[in-house]
Amino acid sequence: MAKELKELTNRDDNYSQWYNDLVVKAGLAENSAVRGCMVIKPYGYAIWEKMQRALDQMFKDTGHENAYFPLFIPKSFFSKEAHHVEGFAKECAVVTHYRLKNDPEGKGVVVDPDAKLEEELIVRPTSETIIWNTYKNWIQSYRDLPILCNQWANVVRWEMRTRLFLRTAEFLWQEGHTAHATREEAIEEAQRMINVYADFVENWMGVPVIVGHKSPNERFAGAEDTLTIEALMQDGKALQSGTSHFLGQNFAKAFDVQFTNKEGKLDYVWATSWGVSTRLMGALIMAHSDNNGLVLPPKLAPIQVVMIPIYKGEEELAQVSEKLSAIADALKKRGISVKLDVRDNVRSGFKFAEYELKGVPVRLAMGPRDLAGGTIEIMRRDTLAKETVSQEGIVERIEKLLEEIQANIYNKALKFREGMMTRVDTYDEFKRVLDEKGGFILAHWDGTPETEERIKEETKATIRCIPLDAPDEEGVCIYSGKPSHRRVIFARSY
Amino acid sequence: MAKELKELTNRDDNYSQWYNDLVVKAGLAENSAVRGCMVIKPYGYAIWEKMQRALDQMFKDTGHENAYFPLFIPKSFFSKEAHHVEGFAKECAVVTHYRLKNDPEGKGVVVDPDAKLEEELIVRPTSETIIWNTYKNWIQSYRDLPILCNQWANVVRWEMRTRLFLRTAEFLWQEGHTAHATREEAIEEAQRMINVYADFVENWMGVPVIVGHKSPNERFAGAEDTLTIEALMQDGKALQSGTSHFLGQNFAKAFDVQFTNKEGKLDYVWATSWGVSTRLMGALIMAHSDNNGLVLPPKLAPIQVVMIPIYKGEEELAQVSEKLSAIADALKKRGISVKLDVRDNVRSGFKFAEYELKGVPVRLAMGPRDLAGGTIEIMRRDTLAKETVSQEGIVERIEKLLEEIQANIYNKALKFREGMMTRVDTYDEFKRVLDEKGGFILAHWDGTPETEERIKEETKATIRCIPLDAPDEEGVCIYSGKPSHRRVIFARSY
Repeated sequence: MAKELKELTNRDDNYSQWYNDLVVKAGLAENSAVRGCMVIKPYGYAIWEKMQRALDQMFKDTGHENAYFPLFIPKSFFSKEAHHVEGFAKECAVVTHYRLKNDPEGKGVVVDPDAKLEEELIVRPTSETIIWNTYKNWIQSYRDLPILCNQWANVVRWEMRTRLFLRTAEFLWQEGHTAHATREEAIEEAQRMINVYADFVENWMGVPVIVGHKSPNERFAGAEDTLTIEALMQDGKALQSGTSHFLGQNFAKAFDVQFTNKEGKLDYVWATSWGVSTRLMGALIMAHSDNNGLVLPPKLAPIQVVMIPIYKGEEELAQVSEKLSAIADALKKRGISVKLDVRDNVRSGFKFAEYELKGVPVRLAMGPRDLAGGTIEIMRRDTLAKETVSQEGIVERIEKLLEEIQANIYNKALKFREGMMTRVDTYDEFKRVLDEKGGFILAHWDGTPETEERIKEETKATIRCIPLDAPDEEGVCIYSGKPSHRRVIFARSY
Repeated sequence: MAKELKELTNRDDNYSQWYNDLVVKAGLAENSAVRGCMVIKPYGYAIWEKMQRALDQMFKDTGHENAYFPLFIPKSFFSKEAHHVEGFAKECAVVTHYRLKNDPEGKGVVVDPDAKLEEELIVRPTSETIIWNTYKNWIQSYRDLPILCNQWANVVRWEMRTRLFLRTAEFLWQEGHTAHATREEAIEEAQRMINVYADFVENWMGVPVIVGHKSPNERFAGAEDTLTIEALMQDGKALQSGTSHFLGQNFAKAFDVQFTNKEGKLDYVWATSWGVSTRLMGALIMAHSDNNGLVLPPKLAPIQVVMIPIYKGEEELAQVSEKLSAIADALKKRGISVKLDVRDNVRSGFKFAEYELKGVPVRLAMGPRDLAGGTIEIMRRDTLAKETVSQEGIVERIEKLLEEIQANIYNKALKFREGMMTRVDTYDEFKRVLDEKGGFILAHWDGTPETEERIKEETKATIRCIPLDAPDEEGVCIYSGKPSHRRVIFARSY
């Protein structure tokens, strides 16, 4: 591990390689034998589980229920919603057969040509189609509405260039799919859920986000409006971290889902969908970590406090461990997760480096001198600051410190982001800031897809969002010179 | 719903239809547009979630960690373990292409023939192969062992005849995969986990099980020993409810997973795997439910207590609801889940039938007379017994009642099962009991696969297990007359 730590690429030399090294060396995930699919390792999965628990509770607190819909979608379903098929049914895993047989030539197994499906099945890239085909049978009257379902599931999109957590062929996510009697109620739901995401990402992950509308070019395929939360990574690139879509009546019309409203008239049902995925793991890692490894916010850290005994010989180990165990028990009673590492086959320096790599928020170390003096060494991962303090009141001190670290991580990321928001008024300035500084660029745009497309082609920057709180401001488009009424946010992105 | 309840097939007329009606009408699951795949509806999923939470905690308490491995498995992996390929790689979903394109003739989308995979991918029917291919990189020394991983996932087996929860093409499950330095440790792990399953099924689901070894014919493909828990349904058929496999070194050899042991010598790693699935939902439903609908054990019921106000006019409703809300709050403080149903568009008789159908363990009803007299009507779902009691001490009474119901459901199922265990000593008697009574039949067997195979062909009964606690008893095989040293358990099964 100490060797592995040394091999961690420097963040400033090669951000992308640093990220990949970190994911692998901290034991979060690794590539699998299947192209583009990752293995999420126990330490990475433990973080994802904590995210799931917190989000799931937030969904339930806002009235949602979980359900589960099929992995496979009949091919024909994708053709039913015109925009959806363009956006989703292309790069995907297609099941064509349902049986293998022994190779007649004796070489393992081969696909049985007699077991060809009449209609191919697509491994879900997202589930609007199969879910709205199901909702058709659930909804007759306004009394059946709203339907507020969420599912935790795996989905597959056949990405050509993949990166652990950020873009993988298979990934884990949740997808909420709601059905409403009115347009207003659906729009309100889409807003409610993007706010839930913003709340989670800021207050649990410690990552500040900008909430806004996607431009039409960047909308979900089949949506009338897409809301997004955009986070900024330490290399100045944006990461779309969650989206919530107002789908209008598009899917209800595609799957003929009508209901009798309060006035006794037939109408199509209004829809939303919203999702976050294991991509959030990528955001978490990239937003906070450093050259020593991960920096995890205490609320999502699988181990919040690690304890390392410093000793020579078994007697000292026993004495120090006894004291540390007592503190560990007191911490656990407060709901703090603690690990006491008594391994004797590695040195304490090795352990220090290992837990820094793994981003454990607080490290305690205790040796014979501490034992004699009633002290303990405490190190916080976010600042790497170390101090020796009295054992007295240590539990309260750690409890407070964990809160402080959670807040500090967020504030640090916020301060960084604030410093990376640049207002520009000309296209030359725009390109210069993009290349020299990166970050979020606030600029005027004429509102046309053509201009957005050209800027993207020329600079690789896209409109990340039109912030919900963007103030009215008259100006001219940096590209076309046409009038604009507010600034939008551009960035290069993951 | 009242109409739906009437349409619930009588359990004694047609058990199979009763089961299917119940699953659909109670809102647990339904068939989807994809052959063999089900939709798990919110109420069904809420039960599954409670199962997951309880099991997951039990896995963690026994030292296991969750991880996630790819959905897809390269076809060639299945050929690496000889028995495994025979058992698993045949009826499965095969991904052959990774792209669709617009139909040149304008009819939706078609599979792009240019996007054919070099090697087909199989949607996992179980994950031993991909996981052991991964473990190869995780294990070098005995210090890397044991590995104790579990994953919650969906799997696909292309079943021809499917039934909701009991046998579906896609199902949800957990699969534990552990790696050990010694044979003994792996055997111990396999036993530990079958005991965890028995504990869960008996103490949470209220279903008594028999723990035993599978006969070689019924073993998992690739296992040296399969442990099973067998439950008895109310129609006298057995349901295999969970299995735990000692895999020997088979997968380590197939994927070349060796480690340096404490003596510094290379050896192959020892393995176990173990799993339970949404099939447990089928066991839960079939073990306890009746002609009024589901009977749920309180520990797994999404709603433990339902409250129904009896009233005429809004004033009465307000008064009754206020009182019920106060009781609801007190119950919630004790961690009891409560639903107060104030819908005014259906009658209370309709509500009564609906919550009986949904198996809510305790129903409270309160009207103006109760309000005046300080009483409340309480109904327990397991016995349908009703009484009017004082509101005083109602919270403690309900708390106790829920425990009583949990115990009673188990005891009733146990008593039923005890009455359905029949010792037989001749093949004629065996066939007579099978046809006239069903249940578990304890009989002598000569230990050969041939005899088991013939009995299965002639009677459709299989050896469910050789119970762990089967006493030594000399006898002769009911079929062949050859010597036998203990009785095994036969039954027809799901």
